[in-house]
Amino acid sequence: MGLFIGVDVGGTKVLAAVVSDTGEVLRTARRSTPGRRVDARLVEDALTAAVVEVADGAPVDGVGIAAAGFVDAAGERVMFAPHLPWRGEDVRARLAERWGTVVALDNDANCTARAECAYGAARGVADVVVLTLGTGIGGALVIGGRVHRGRNGMAGEFGHMQVVPDGQPCECGNRGCWEQYCSGNALVRYARARIGHEPTVLEELCSGNPDLLVGPMVTDAAEDGDLVARQAFASVGDWLGVGVANLVAAFDPDCVVVGGGVSAAGARLLEPARAALARALVGGADRLVPPLLRVELGPQSGVVGAADLVRSVVAG
Amino acid sequence: MGLFIGVDVGGTKVLAAVVSDTGEVLRTARRSTPGRRVDARLVEDALTAAVVEVADGAPVDGVGIAAAGFVDAAGERVMFAPHLPWRGEDVRARLAERWGTVVALDNDANCTARAECAYGAARGVADVVVLTLGTGIGGALVIGGRVHRGRNGMAGEFGHMQVVPDGQPCECGNRGCWEQYCSGNALVRYARARIGHEPTVLEELCSGNPDLLVGPMVTDAAEDGDLVARQAFASVGDWLGVGVANLVAAFDPDCVVVGGGVSAAGARLLEPARAALARALVGGADRLVPPLLRVELGPQSGVVGAADLVRSVVAG
Repeated sequence: MGLFIGVDVGGTKVLAAVVSDTGEVLRTARRSTPGRRVDARLVEDALTAAVVEVADGAPVDGVGIAAAGFVDAAGERVMFAPHLPWRGEDVRARLAERWGTVVALDNDANCTARAECAYGAARGVADVVVLTLGTGIGGALVIGGRVHRGRNGMAGEFGHMQVVPDGQPCECGNRGCWEQYCSGNALVRYARARIGHEPTVLEELCSGNPDLLVGPMVTDAAEDGDLVARQAFASVGDWLGVGVANLVAAFDPDCVVVGGGVSAAGARLLEPARAALARALVGGADRLVPPLLRVELGPQSGVVGAADLVRSVVAG
Repeated sequence: MGLFIGVDVGGTKVLAAVVSDTGEVLRTARRSTPGRRVDARLVEDALTAAVVEVADGAPVDGVGIAAAGFVDAAGERVMFAPHLPWRGEDVRARLAERWGTVVALDNDANCTARAECAYGAARGVADVVVLTLGTGIGGALVIGGRVHRGRNGMAGEFGHMQVVPDGQPCECGNRGCWEQYCSGNALVRYARARIGHEPTVLEELCSGNPDLLVGPMVTDAAEDGDLVARQAFASVGDWLGVGVANLVAAFDPDCVVVGGGVSAAGARLLEPARAALARALVGGADRLVPPLLRVELGPQSGVVGAADLVRSVVAG
């Protein structure tokens, strides 16, 4: 069978897992990510420590890495990662040499897509749009059962499609990007703007300082019936549906799968999104509208997809 | 070699052509399209007359049809066509029986994509976005050298991606669709709104009645140096670049090819579009920006692609 490990490298933590050939996570190890202003070797040390711990002395047949950043078309380099120190570095070959095993590399949204297609919400379908709503929007496009990576390996950057002319400034340098209206950041911005103007439990949760508000507080407050928090999800959900309608007009996929921290809100996010999709999709009355589903593998989708990737590389 | 015919069925005319296996148009025949409020058989009679004329008595090995409308995923039916009477009709089988030959069917933008990939601006590349700017926007997506048709056969409806919240009303029932800002209709609307407010030769060209203004008048006036006409192209070109940046963020293609009547303006359309693409594309400094090219086969791309399609069906 072989021992295959998936590693998900995010901005705050490294998660490594031994994954079975049926996509089951057998055991895990965690490390903190050292941050983006450190030497890249420190991040690689953290990865190494997590891999060594989870391997637990057994010989490793391959390690797949899901990185929160741009990975080049060849799957060799992390070109840029907003929360990691890699800048065009040859991560795959360097770690393969250091670890003496096969290493495969892709970005985290592509790994999530791979996992959900193989073992999750998109099992058995050919064409899938995958979105991960966290700080921003991660995206992946599956065509004919394969992740479409594109000329630069940058396909799936749905979050930076412009949806509002001269809209909210985005970290990418442009304005009006979709992720400014449909992400954890958008959720928090919506809620912050109302604190002090409307009665809301969020004021208490952030100790009266809107700058301290974070996404999970909004999720919890919405769960407890707070109106402002619920409106924040209705707004983000509506924008999710409008953007998904754009992607469905372009790709006509079999289904759309949504993950990431914001998706923990479940129906509170997806119901308004489904309503907006049905309203905004061109030719909606004359077509099958694709189901808008939540990921099934949750926060483990990255490691499962990364392990699946390296397993396929070893299998040739 | 065999005799293969392509037929392009638009809202105003039917063009049939015998096409060689190198994509060369050997001879053509034309008919008027009877309109959309007539019996569908009248349109099929016009197609038959054009096919019979162009075949000129020789045995026909196959006919490909490029239809200006939605074609189902199986390539059997025209589900809906804004300017043709077909509504869910089984066009392919009906014409195959009537003509006693192999018939293949796809929409016109997909046929244009096929032709440009085989013989035109997108020769030798894998992933291509194709746009045809006419009354609205036709679109096609080529992934790995194959036209991606999607679950309903409706992939490539780029013109109905929402780019302006609560924007211009669109014939599709929504507001703010891209084609309301980037099409022949958009060009004419922009110019009409300025007639009577700014000095422009367009006023004379439309005999003082802005309702009589049509796209080719704007193209001609821009060519002659008319400032309003040139501003209209600058606006449509800018919106072309912004929308293309969205599609490139999503697909990361090798190139983008633009055809349709509006593309006859050439650099006047494409230069502002290239500037907007360079400005709006996420990660533009860290990637290869795909070339934005004009179609090479022009108005014959539909018949060439349709003939190529049926040739591939016959070849199996």
